Amino acid sequence: MTVAMRAGPSQDEIRRQNLGALLRYVHVRGATTRAELTTALGLNRSTIGALTADLAGAGLVSEGTPKETGRAGRPSLVVRPESARVYAYAYSIEVDRLRAARVGLGGEVLDRRELERPRNLVAGDAAPLLADAVREMHRAVPPDSICVGAGVAVCGMVRREDGLVRLSPTTGWVDEPIGAALAAELGVDVPITVGNVADVAAFAEHARGVAAGCDNVIYLYGDVGVGAGIIAGGRRLTGHGGYSGEVGHMVVVRDGVLCDCGRRGCWETEIGEHGLLRAAGRSDARGREALLALFDAADRGDARAQTAVRQAGDWLGFGVANLVNIFNPEMVIFGGTMRDLYLAAAAQVRSRLNSNGLPACLEHVRLRTPKLGDDAALIGAAELAFERLLADPLDVG
Amino acid sequence: MTVAMRAGPSQDEIRRQNLGALLRYVHVRGATTRAELTTALGLNRSTIGALTADLAGAGLVSEGTPKETGRAGRPSLVVRPESARVYAYAYSIEVDRLRAARVGLGGEVLDRRELERPRNLVAGDAAPLLADAVREMHRAVPPDSICVGAGVAVCGMVRREDGLVRLSPTTGWVDEPIGAALAAELGVDVPITVGNVADVAAFAEHARGVAAGCDNVIYLYGDVGVGAGIIAGGRRLTGHGGYSGEVGHMVVVRDGVLCDCGRRGCWETEIGEHGLLRAAGRSDARGREALLALFDAADRGDARAQTAVRQAGDWLGFGVANLVNIFNPEMVIFGGTMRDLYLAAAAQVRSRLNSNGLPACLEHVRLRTPKLGDDAALIGAAELAFERLLADPLDVG
Repeated sequence: MTVAMRAGPSQDEIRRQNLGALLRYVHVRGATTRAELTTALGLNRSTIGALTADLAGAGLVSEGTPKETGRAGRPSLVVRPESARVYAYAYSIEVDRLRAARVGLGGEVLDRRELERPRNLVAGDAAPLLADAVREMHRAVPPDSICVGAGVAVCGMVRREDGLVRLSPTTGWVDEPIGAALAAELGVDVPITVGNVADVAAFAEHARGVAAGCDNVIYLYGDVGVGAGIIAGGRRLTGHGGYSGEVGHMVVVRDGVLCDCGRRGCWETEIGEHGLLRAAGRSDARGREALLALFDAADRGDARAQTAVRQAGDWLGFGVANLVNIFNPEMVIFGGTMRDLYLAAAAQVRSRLNSNGLPACLEHVRLRTPKLGDDAALIGAAELAFERLLADPLDVG
Repeated sequence: MTVAMRAGPSQDEIRRQNLGALLRYVHVRGATTRAELTTALGLNRSTIGALTADLAGAGLVSEGTPKETGRAGRPSLVVRPESARVYAYAYSIEVDRLRAARVGLGGEVLDRRELERPRNLVAGDAAPLLADAVREMHRAVPPDSICVGAGVAVCGMVRREDGLVRLSPTTGWVDEPIGAALAAELGVDVPITVGNVADVAAFAEHARGVAAGCDNVIYLYGDVGVGAGIIAGGRRLTGHGGYSGEVGHMVVVRDGVLCDCGRRGCWETEIGEHGLLRAAGRSDARGREALLALFDAADRGDARAQTAVRQAGDWLGFGVANLVNIFNPEMVIFGGTMRDLYLAAAAQVRSRLNSNGLPACLEHVRLRTPKLGDDAALIGAAELAFERLLADPLDVG
């Protein structure tokens, strides 16, 4: 209601909106002819020309002749994002590793670093490690480049208004201002936006991955815990404080197994790392390697491992059915360890989903694995920074 | 992504948007001074004057001097919605009754009819009954009135693209084109928009009820079944086909009680009409009267009724906690029979919600009953029709 009650935009706002729309188009689709931009954006040729000139003047796009098309006639000029020159830094703080990357406008990972993360590494110790990685990458950046900001993906609940990590049961963080810590460590004043890993991965897959063009998507991400990034009506679902998507703490077994969050019977106690390893009689093992070893054992015919994987697959389908009945999505994406589990137990997942889902909610839903793979977290974190640029291109350049 | 990639609007679109914004403002807030409109919409005085003149010319608003304010100086003119002249018809098809109303611009119910509905009344028989009620009301409509359309609220799953009622387990309807049936029965060509009762009630409470100003809301509606209307980020959540919000079919007890939908352990088997009456040893009873008798018995100290109500209240809190963790809403509204259950077992609802909800998701959530009461379905159905008017005011008038 709030949005619709706004009056129409001013001329300045329209120009910003047009600049953002053109830049977003080439950011998402890559090099595009002026002719296609004219059609796609519904603007006339002279407006497209003026907008392109403004963006080129700010160093955000360049224009040139297209590659040989084999067609006769004068070719339409091609507008390209300045992917090598305009970039954002992206950080991903995961259960078992820290990653940093430099991502160009257009979504290409230009450079990256990865560090092992000892579990229970406190936030105060994570920031310097990531800052070191970024400083190292920064030395290789061409001198006339433009850094538009930085984004961080964290496996935890992130407050929308300021990016505070409220709670990350899997890393033990409580109320950690990781964005501010990184900014202080780097001694820079570029804005650093923080988001939940499932949310930003969903954002990336929706912008340029398997869910491109889909307006209603659930991206299920698993590590020790399980969370979802949700796209509803083409927009990210954030909830009031930024905490929506905590589907791993949907209780599926009343008085079930104790969860890291202190409650009992949460969905992630059945499909998360601990639950899978417990069911397979491997409670002492930890980490993604242990999980992959379990899937491998199931694949090689180990009966106990197979039973554990099938049972977890059934629980995965059980929870997905609930979410499909609640959200009526057109796609469910399985990322992180949920990808491994889904691939190992697809028959069980589908069978339970089909028996628990309502027919109308099931009829258009597709189950998919990520197109961007593990890079979704990094690319999504960078998208958080690019969003600021796209909202007002000439202000950031 | 789709929306943001659009270019800025044309001058025509801006004018339509401004007309819609002004009309929506007085539709939601009632009579408003030109001065307040200028501030609220961020437009200058002459633009407000021109927009008002256009809307007045179409008979949608009128202008006049305000009531005595006691303040000195020339008073700002007041813009009023033409509530008695501009109206929509609203229908509500419920488990136990059929309702029809004439709702004025501004949301006031101008006239209404109510009929008992025998359970299992087929759609083909519901349409003529409702059409009769509307014809009767129509005879009393002033001759220079403007009907902008009609909306229908149905307890069932409604396909977004055409309003087909796909499934209504509580009425037994399958693939019923109720909108078309009503239009044929009435022999009119006004557009008839169909929506799920929980969705339209949520819409009404969000526009002009207890959730005004809230961007993230869950409206839980119960009769025999349970469904939710969800507002996320200020917008209605519809899902891909229009079927989102089927929270009553979130399975909470694996291999639980058989549900009307054919599955087992759905949430509504514990908190819906049948579950409540079953738990109280009243399985033979049916209907809202039977349910109210049960709550009344609990209130008067009947031990078995009290146990049933407390247990259902605990299950209500259980499911709400899951939804709060998934959506992070700022408000949960209990409508229909959920209102009765919530009021009868508020302590159990809160206790279970507090123990199963994540602290960050709980910290801003308020539990409320509807402000518009049972009228929410009628007002929400009318809002479906008004939405068409507000999207392009001068096209409908």
